[in-house]
Amino acid sequence: MMRTRPLKVALLGCGVVGSEVARIMTTHADDLAARIGAPVELAGIAVRRPGRVRDGVPEELITTDATALVKRGDIDVVVEVIGGIEPARTLITTAFEHGASVVSANKALLAGDGAALHAAAEKHGADLYYEAAVAGAIPLVRPLRESLAGDKVNRVLGIVNGTTNFILDKMDTSGAGYSEALDEATALGYAEADPTADVEAFDAAAKAAILAGIAFHTRVRLDDVYREGMTEVTAADFASAKQMGCTIKLLAICERAADGQSVTARVHPAMIPLSHPLASVREAYNAVFVEAEAAGQLMFYGPGAGGAPTASAVLGDLVAVCRNKLGEATGPGESAYTRLPVSPMGEVVTRYHISLDVADKPGVLAQVATVFAEHDVSIDTVRQKGKDGEASLVVVTHRAPDAALSATVGALRGLDTVRGVASIMRVEGE
Amino acid sequence: MMRTRPLKVALLGCGVVGSEVARIMTTHADDLAARIGAPVELAGIAVRRPGRVRDGVPEELITTDATALVKRGDIDVVVEVIGGIEPARTLITTAFEHGASVVSANKALLAGDGAALHAAAEKHGADLYYEAAVAGAIPLVRPLRESLAGDKVNRVLGIVNGTTNFILDKMDTSGAGYSEALDEATALGYAEADPTADVEAFDAAAKAAILAGIAFHTRVRLDDVYREGMTEVTAADFASAKQMGCTIKLLAICERAADGQSVTARVHPAMIPLSHPLASVREAYNAVFVEAEAAGQLMFYGPGAGGAPTASAVLGDLVAVCRNKLGEATGPGESAYTRLPVSPMGEVVTRYHISLDVADKPGVLAQVATVFAEHDVSIDTVRQKGKDGEASLVVVTHRAPDAALSATVGALRGLDTVRGVASIMRVEGE
Repeated sequence: MMRTRPLKVALLGCGVVGSEVARIMTTHADDLAARIGAPVELAGIAVRRPGRVRDGVPEELITTDATALVKRGDIDVVVEVIGGIEPARTLITTAFEHGASVVSANKALLAGDGAALHAAAEKHGADLYYEAAVAGAIPLVRPLRESLAGDKVNRVLGIVNGTTNFILDKMDTSGAGYSEALDEATALGYAEADPTADVEAFDAAAKAAILAGIAFHTRVRLDDVYREGMTEVTAADFASAKQMGCTIKLLAICERAADGQSVTARVHPAMIPLSHPLASVREAYNAVFVEAEAAGQLMFYGPGAGGAPTASAVLGDLVAVCRNKLGEATGPGESAYTRLPVSPMGEVVTRYHISLDVADKPGVLAQVATVFAEHDVSIDTVRQKGKDGEASLVVVTHRAPDAALSATVGALRGLDTVRGVASIMRVEGE
Repeated sequence: MMRTRPLKVALLGCGVVGSEVARIMTTHADDLAARIGAPVELAGIAVRRPGRVRDGVPEELITTDATALVKRGDIDVVVEVIGGIEPARTLITTAFEHGASVVSANKALLAGDGAALHAAAEKHGADLYYEAAVAGAIPLVRPLRESLAGDKVNRVLGIVNGTTNFILDKMDTSGAGYSEALDEATALGYAEADPTADVEAFDAAAKAAILAGIAFHTRVRLDDVYREGMTEVTAADFASAKQMGCTIKLLAICERAADGQSVTARVHPAMIPLSHPLASVREAYNAVFVEAEAAGQLMFYGPGAGGAPTASAVLGDLVAVCRNKLGEATGPGESAYTRLPVSPMGEVVTRYHISLDVADKPGVLAQVATVFAEHDVSIDTVRQKGKDGEASLVVVTHRAPDAALSATVGALRGLDTVRGVASIMRVEGE
């Protein structure tokens, strides 16, 4: 039954992920052949710096000319693990033009240009698979695209960035501040030298855009995703969270509006109850909740990054794409038929936890409560603490549109008796 | 782009799951059409008792002649949610012979006859999908078959039966005995009038056979799965588990042997540490851990049964099978190329927690310890309690082959000073 001419794979990038892909393709060649129905051969590996290629990667396959590799004409599948927008975008497009299907782990590119790439794939009858772009080894793209294809997803809520989860977990368990926890993450290799993409939530926002698009069968671009990083989260916030029976996580939240006519996608730190399964996701692990009409609540958990886990997702896609090639078929392409618009953050309905520094005198609480009432924001609980003429008020609201909550905070800042807004954090997962 | 001739679906069975499938196919027809690329039409529904058809199911589609429906010749996909071996097996085979692909939720049939059914599907160029057969709505078959197709799965460990998890959870949280907890499960609709299939672990064993086969790319039949029900678990066992920082779950465990040359599959109650994520799976939920070489530890969690969740899995498969039909392709079929043999339970390496009633006199512990040593079973901890001339010994072993552990228990029963073996339970998940 097995075809003898091997399928040829071009690997673009040979860093942490690429070298694992090359290693597994070599050591597990027989298994891959049996599962695909034909042998699969690494035809070339494009790298920027040939001197830095890792042990175990076949040197004779290395080239610095990625474009020539992709244009060779005999490549069946291009595996792109370079990351970033260019040259990845041009190489992928060129791959499609030369008859190859593509497996990519590139979240930034897919979040920014997914629609154009899907269109190019469809035009050339090729596949574009990207399980590795979201939450590493955790099967998430395929379950959403395929397993839940007969269901209606209403919500995706998850921890999709391991670096920030490591830092927040550290702050939670050790009482450390943000910079101390970041230093530890850097020392242990969980954070990069420049941690901006992680801690400012650009990475998580790209994943949220991809997940929202697939979940709701619409187009969600990176710019549509509301984004707040987690560099302002303090040890005091964790103390407040504990008093509420909560912890703090950086969450990606994609929701269908109650009327079903729009969707929202956002990434920000939030308090969640300790009883919520996401609260116990430790270290650099990722976990994503999916709520669907018929299926109910599903959770997917696992390592969200790292060379081997990401390679596992890449190779799963590679097997599928190779099978499609052999069967002269293509897998599911972009599904954006609902054309649901993405609403701005102001329309998201959520809850706020607000800490105010206020003057310690009678009537302050009444004043503050009036501001909430004027903005139609209902208060759930208030905690008041006073000492030495200073006092603090901690207010937790009921659910209200983010715009109303935000306007309330603006008005509170304008009160003479409010000396400062110490912190604002959303409360989710209840 | 959209084809106008609809794909025709025959639904076999219209109970709790079937009526949900029919309902969603009717109410979400537009979404299904958009996702498939062609409209999909319910062409007929075969039931045994037409008088018992539920509200919302189109009456004009009902027939009692399932065979005629399957043989009509214009059916693209047969959805089988009857359960049991016959007539399901014959109907599925007939469906393949008449050009239809099949989506089934039938774990007993797939565990018993999966190989023959896969062969029939392949012979006729048809698909056989069965995500709903294992763990209801939780995507598990597709992730194992496809997402992890480029990885090497070493272990699958999970709670795959909601009824027994509900009962054990109840015993754990309320201190109730088995029959009291079973009564509550029955009253709430979590247990059937005859709970044998669940509590004697036949249901979980079928799922273990299916999961092991897919995970290890080999054939594992129901008869290959070691099975122990949970009717003997007592409140005293839960008390012992708590003393060890554990709880008790009915686990399905599929493992690749350390030398990689064989696999094992088993279902039995076991103690697992409270710190293990499976320990906190409550009520009727299911959760499955998958350990793969590159991916690491993944967990999948969700509702393991129920009409709507199971229908969600069926419809996800229906969309995939319909897309394959349109593209004149088939999805992945059986993958059993490794032909790894299934080893008997005696070769499984595990740990035992053993409670012994012993005579309260000097030298008993020495005698007992000698028996363990004679069987090459190393003891981890011993707890000794004495009162009124009677005493009990609780021994927890290190890892050893199940045959050695079992022989040790046999020899202990033969000691004069051992009055009885109060309980034996395996310890997993460490």
